[in-house]
Amino acid sequence: MISVAEARERIVAELRPTPGEVVHLAAAWGRVTAAPITARLTQPPRDVSAMDGYAVRSGDAVAHAVLNVVGSAPAGHPWAGRIGAGESLRIFTGSVMPEGADGVLLQEDATVTGNQVTVGEAVGPGQFVRRAGQDFRAGDVLITAGKRLNARDIGLAAAANHPWLTLHRRPRVAILATGDEIALPGEPIPPGGIVSSNAHALGALVHAAGGEPVVLPVVPDDRATIGVAAEAATGMDLLVTTGGASVGDHDLVQQALVERGLKVDFWKIAMRPGKPLIHGRLGSVPLIGLPGNPVSAMVCGILFLLPAIQRLTGLPGLPPPVATAVLDTPLPANDGRADHLRARLTTRADGTLVVTPYERQDSAMLRLLSEADALVLRDPYAPALPAGALVTMIRLDTIGL
Amino acid sequence: MISVAEARERIVAELRPTPGEVVHLAAAWGRVTAAPITARLTQPPRDVSAMDGYAVRSGDAVAHAVLNVVGSAPAGHPWAGRIGAGESLRIFTGSVMPEGADGVLLQEDATVTGNQVTVGEAVGPGQFVRRAGQDFRAGDVLITAGKRLNARDIGLAAAANHPWLTLHRRPRVAILATGDEIALPGEPIPPGGIVSSNAHALGALVHAAGGEPVVLPVVPDDRATIGVAAEAATGMDLLVTTGGASVGDHDLVQQALVERGLKVDFWKIAMRPGKPLIHGRLGSVPLIGLPGNPVSAMVCGILFLLPAIQRLTGLPGLPPPVATAVLDTPLPANDGRADHLRARLTTRADGTLVVTPYERQDSAMLRLLSEADALVLRDPYAPALPAGALVTMIRLDTIGL
Repeated sequence: MISVAEARERIVAELRPTPGEVVHLAAAWGRVTAAPITARLTQPPRDVSAMDGYAVRSGDAVAHAVLNVVGSAPAGHPWAGRIGAGESLRIFTGSVMPEGADGVLLQEDATVTGNQVTVGEAVGPGQFVRRAGQDFRAGDVLITAGKRLNARDIGLAAAANHPWLTLHRRPRVAILATGDEIALPGEPIPPGGIVSSNAHALGALVHAAGGEPVVLPVVPDDRATIGVAAEAATGMDLLVTTGGASVGDHDLVQQALVERGLKVDFWKIAMRPGKPLIHGRLGSVPLIGLPGNPVSAMVCGILFLLPAIQRLTGLPGLPPPVATAVLDTPLPANDGRADHLRARLTTRADGTLVVTPYERQDSAMLRLLSEADALVLRDPYAPALPAGALVTMIRLDTIGL
Repeated sequence: MISVAEARERIVAELRPTPGEVVHLAAAWGRVTAAPITARLTQPPRDVSAMDGYAVRSGDAVAHAVLNVVGSAPAGHPWAGRIGAGESLRIFTGSVMPEGADGVLLQEDATVTGNQVTVGEAVGPGQFVRRAGQDFRAGDVLITAGKRLNARDIGLAAAANHPWLTLHRRPRVAILATGDEIALPGEPIPPGGIVSSNAHALGALVHAAGGEPVVLPVVPDDRATIGVAAEAATGMDLLVTTGGASVGDHDLVQQALVERGLKVDFWKIAMRPGKPLIHGRLGSVPLIGLPGNPVSAMVCGILFLLPAIQRLTGLPGLPPPVATAVLDTPLPANDGRADHLRARLTTRADGTLVVTPYERQDSAMLRLLSEADALVLRDPYAPALPAGALVTMIRLDTIGL
């Protein structure tokens, strides 16, 4: 059995980001750049006013000076003339500074009388002027390749005059749930069977991570059928199976896929929940075989599938972010398997984040998993901890998972 | 001028969540429930095995006992008979427990000889059995109304047999950018003009918050044209304008919309960047008029538009979450306007989060805004702070904005 960290590294090391595609700016939020975004223009394009007021020659605009207003230049309507001695130009935020002027008299510091303004407060050179290129210059790299675009980045790319961006294609992730006992929601349930929850929970995880889930039809525990179904994943960026990764008589996924040419980099991971996990490659398609148990599948999804998909989208594929909290109840020493305790978070009046692992950690408890705010991480052979100890956790409530 | 908190409360108080619509489970991630999700079945439906092994009568399964194996029950294939004295049934994780049996002998504790197993470790009553309803029972409320669904919730809703969910409709948010000087990316730029970044940055924010942006054509600074354009927002859940919210000669949005019946709950907010902001209602459509300056527009978007859209999606519309960090450089005392300093975050070797406000806080610097990790919050009249002080901030890097 290998460690959680080694398993993740082996999965991520084998994956390459998807190639770039052209995406219009309005669809780019949350996607990852496949090429740097450079400025196509200089911003501001010329010296502009930072305020509403009057463009002046700073030498003229001493306190109590009276200046002629020779015109007006709304933003988008530059004034073609030149400001001479004793002159000023009505100007607004974003208006191009006219030739000759080098400062802006704020409108609240100006007294207007007919076509003249009286200066209330002297204007220094460059005052309230935004210099051409103050924000960026044509050719500047504004956003590097491999960045997930947030709303501010979208604004910056727009300002840099990009209607189209080159972004990594959303990875297509095929999800194949297996088992005689499972049915899709709303469909007839076989005797003793249950409703399949893994495919759509993992589909949501794929979506959250920036991929495109392709949920394949559920297949029964039949070797030939599983093999045929898996071939539907040809051309996908990743194939995820659930169920059949363990060693029981009816765990057929591995056998079925090996017959179809699966190259297994198989392992069991020293972890709980979710020891059995297949990693390999079916033809050119990387494969992650998750346990069939829904809690194990989701925990393994968070630990392994999330970084894998992030890597495919062009990000580094790092482990889920961790945080710390104060333990509310004592914890016993751990055995040799890394544990991931479902837990609730509360905040004390003084702001301290407190974490309470559920007493029941049964891996079939989907409801508790859904209610949990965090997974408390327990290393193999971690010593017992008293209440009040600091523990490390993955906050599920902040990552949409 | 009113405070940021009061402005937000007034905006949110006026909004009602959108009505529910039927959405298929595969499209429900990140959406908000408009009705509770109750269990349509009991999970597990009957007592099932928690492990691979042999179903036994615990009274019989003492150490070294030899039991006959009378059959096999894979998951999804319940065994119809009853386990009598000295009998056992081959069973797997998730298999229905047969009548008569009350515990499971682990396969690793069993020695198989032909049709018999020898018990290695005695089996107690209920051992490795998951009781019917241990996860949930038919009729249980599993997910309340008003919850944003994460991937685990999708799994739980699936397991509870819901192919369809009733979710708040995504609010449609019309975005109207105004200004003679702006052009859409890739289109001809007027002399002295700039590329419009607000519409698409705010569109991305709407998307991130769970809404559907409807970007209206850019309108010039013309009263009649603005009025006609705003009528395109009829039937929308919210109208957002940018530009024209200030008091300059060319700030026409308010005038234009008042002519069309805008009921103004107008204010200036004691904040920086972004003092001018219109709040009102045009017919039945709530309106938020943001400043035209791109940094101000985005900061006001985060502070006001994000909670507004969240409220429309069915969430409470709380302020953006805050965190604390250690200040890297001293800060001067603040004036009467709440400030929102763009800042970078770094983590020291000991894990301490350190925040460094940019020296230049010019509200035209889109590039710095894009690079920022956080907005450091400075209350009105906040005292000067030395390096090393704790400050409160909105982490932009974790909310996709």
